[in-house]
Amino acid sequence: MLSIPRFGRMALKQVSSSKSFGGFQKVFEHDSVELKCKMKFAVYLPPKAESAKCPVLYFLSGLTCTEQNFITKSGFQQAASEHGLIVIAPDTSPRGCNIKGEDDSWDFGTGAGFYVDATEDPWKTNYRMYSYVTEELPQLVNANFPVDPQRTSIFGHSMGGHGALICTLKNPGKYKSVSAFAPICNPMLCVWSKKAFGEFLGPDQNKWKAYDATHLVKSYTGSQLDILIDQGKADEFYDQLLPENFIAACTEKKIPVVFRLQEGYDHGYYFIATFIADHIRHHAKYLNA
Amino acid sequence: MLSIPRFGRMALKQVSSSKSFGGFQKVFEHDSVELKCKMKFAVYLPPKAESAKCPVLYFLSGLTCTEQNFITKSGFQQAASEHGLIVIAPDTSPRGCNIKGEDDSWDFGTGAGFYVDATEDPWKTNYRMYSYVTEELPQLVNANFPVDPQRTSIFGHSMGGHGALICTLKNPGKYKSVSAFAPICNPMLCVWSKKAFGEFLGPDQNKWKAYDATHLVKSYTGSQLDILIDQGKADEFYDQLLPENFIAACTEKKIPVVFRLQEGYDHGYYFIATFIADHIRHHAKYLNA
Repeated sequence: MLSIPRFGRMALKQVSSSKSFGGFQKVFEHDSVELKCKMKFAVYLPPKAESAKCPVLYFLSGLTCTEQNFITKSGFQQAASEHGLIVIAPDTSPRGCNIKGEDDSWDFGTGAGFYVDATEDPWKTNYRMYSYVTEELPQLVNANFPVDPQRTSIFGHSMGGHGALICTLKNPGKYKSVSAFAPICNPMLCVWSKKAFGEFLGPDQNKWKAYDATHLVKSYTGSQLDILIDQGKADEFYDQLLPENFIAACTEKKIPVVFRLQEGYDHGYYFIATFIADHIRHHAKYLNA
Repeated sequence: MLSIPRFGRMALKQVSSSKSFGGFQKVFEHDSVELKCKMKFAVYLPPKAESAKCPVLYFLSGLTCTEQNFITKSGFQQAASEHGLIVIAPDTSPRGCNIKGEDDSWDFGTGAGFYVDATEDPWKTNYRMYSYVTEELPQLVNANFPVDPQRTSIFGHSMGGHGALICTLKNPGKYKSVSAFAPICNPMLCVWSKKAFGEFLGPDQNKWKAYDATHLVKSYTGSQLDILIDQGKADEFYDQLLPENFIAACTEKKIPVVFRLQEGYDHGYYFIATFIADHIRHHAKYLNA
């Protein structure tokens, strides 16, 4: 199938580049067609990328994050370097669109795009993070870095764990593997995302189901999945995340989920850093197969 | 020798605690006697500290840092957990003392105490970071955490690399081992520290020698040292650091220095994170001997 890159030829501006574990941690800026604003994203190029095409792993971040949090705090570069994976970390929302109410709260708007394509005013022009992370950004990455697009996987944290799960469930075969740290598993029932879905998608909750992992898994008919989820038992937001609902839906569909309830861990980056090597290994098993 | 803890009984207030690699990354606040202000410091307790006294390793941070930078960005917890080391990361200056000029520049005053005891007004009352990191903080740590004070080591980055070197050279036998990332090696000849030393210590440069590693090593008569220094070859501040002067002085004194010039690495935390496990291993060799 011939695909014409709608976005691949857009210019990238390098914002920073630092050597890290033999490779390079870089940040780029570009004019996003989907989001109609300047966006930054981070790219880790492992040493292997100097001489060969590498698999690519997307990490979607949680509420309030930019492209910086994951790349500065998780320590993922060590394992990505070892396994030869290119890792992409996008921002979590459009930036600087000057929409009324965009900056009023930490859990909605700026830093909180929830990986949906908004259908409601005033959000629908810019807040298209679902199309950005599943279409525009991959085309840009595939056109500009030494990636093998046939070997793409995705993971994320909290709101970004929700993002990773829905991107996988809505696009069977697009991602070789998926994992998440403390994901929002049933956003229709979570205070943060109920507010965001109402604003972005309108009051009809039937429309929300298209972005709810627990609902999506019920009608999933794609290829076999092997989902890894780590969840801190001392997570201060545990009540919002509802992993049990997702696991029950997976069990009913006979989709295997490795759910690890980690004693004593909270919701933050010390938790992510502790288990990041396990997640990279999980993805490398499929990406380097 | 009986030592009476001047500071050990001061109250500590826990600011945060997160599980990390099986142990806990904590931050505490206390009223500093030396600095006459509230100070925060970070403590990593490895899993081993639940059941045994552990060696203790101090990390001194660079310009502009607080106790947060090292604990969120270096990923040291993985290796500290494995080797069973308690790691202490103090702040880099007194805070909130409201001294005129304290907050005017990023390389002097707040965030830039340079690990000296100031002798000049208006700094001499609060800017006593040398006594704080070598006396007050160790007594506080030894009295409140399961450490074996006989097994103490120190390392640091940039201004904190300078700090680690001078603390070691001025106190033979106090630290079992020392290492540094991109240390300021000859501060009397470095733009940043010439400014700071002039303000803190006055215009007589003979007084500056007491806080200059390259000068201190010339008169060092303590026990055998085994110094590890990593330096990025692409360090944007290389000209200020003058490692060659320090190495020449060490060579003359027949003090071994493992100096690793790391191709392509800059001055930042991606550089530190890449080599942190090597440094922890260097210290563990002496601390766990």
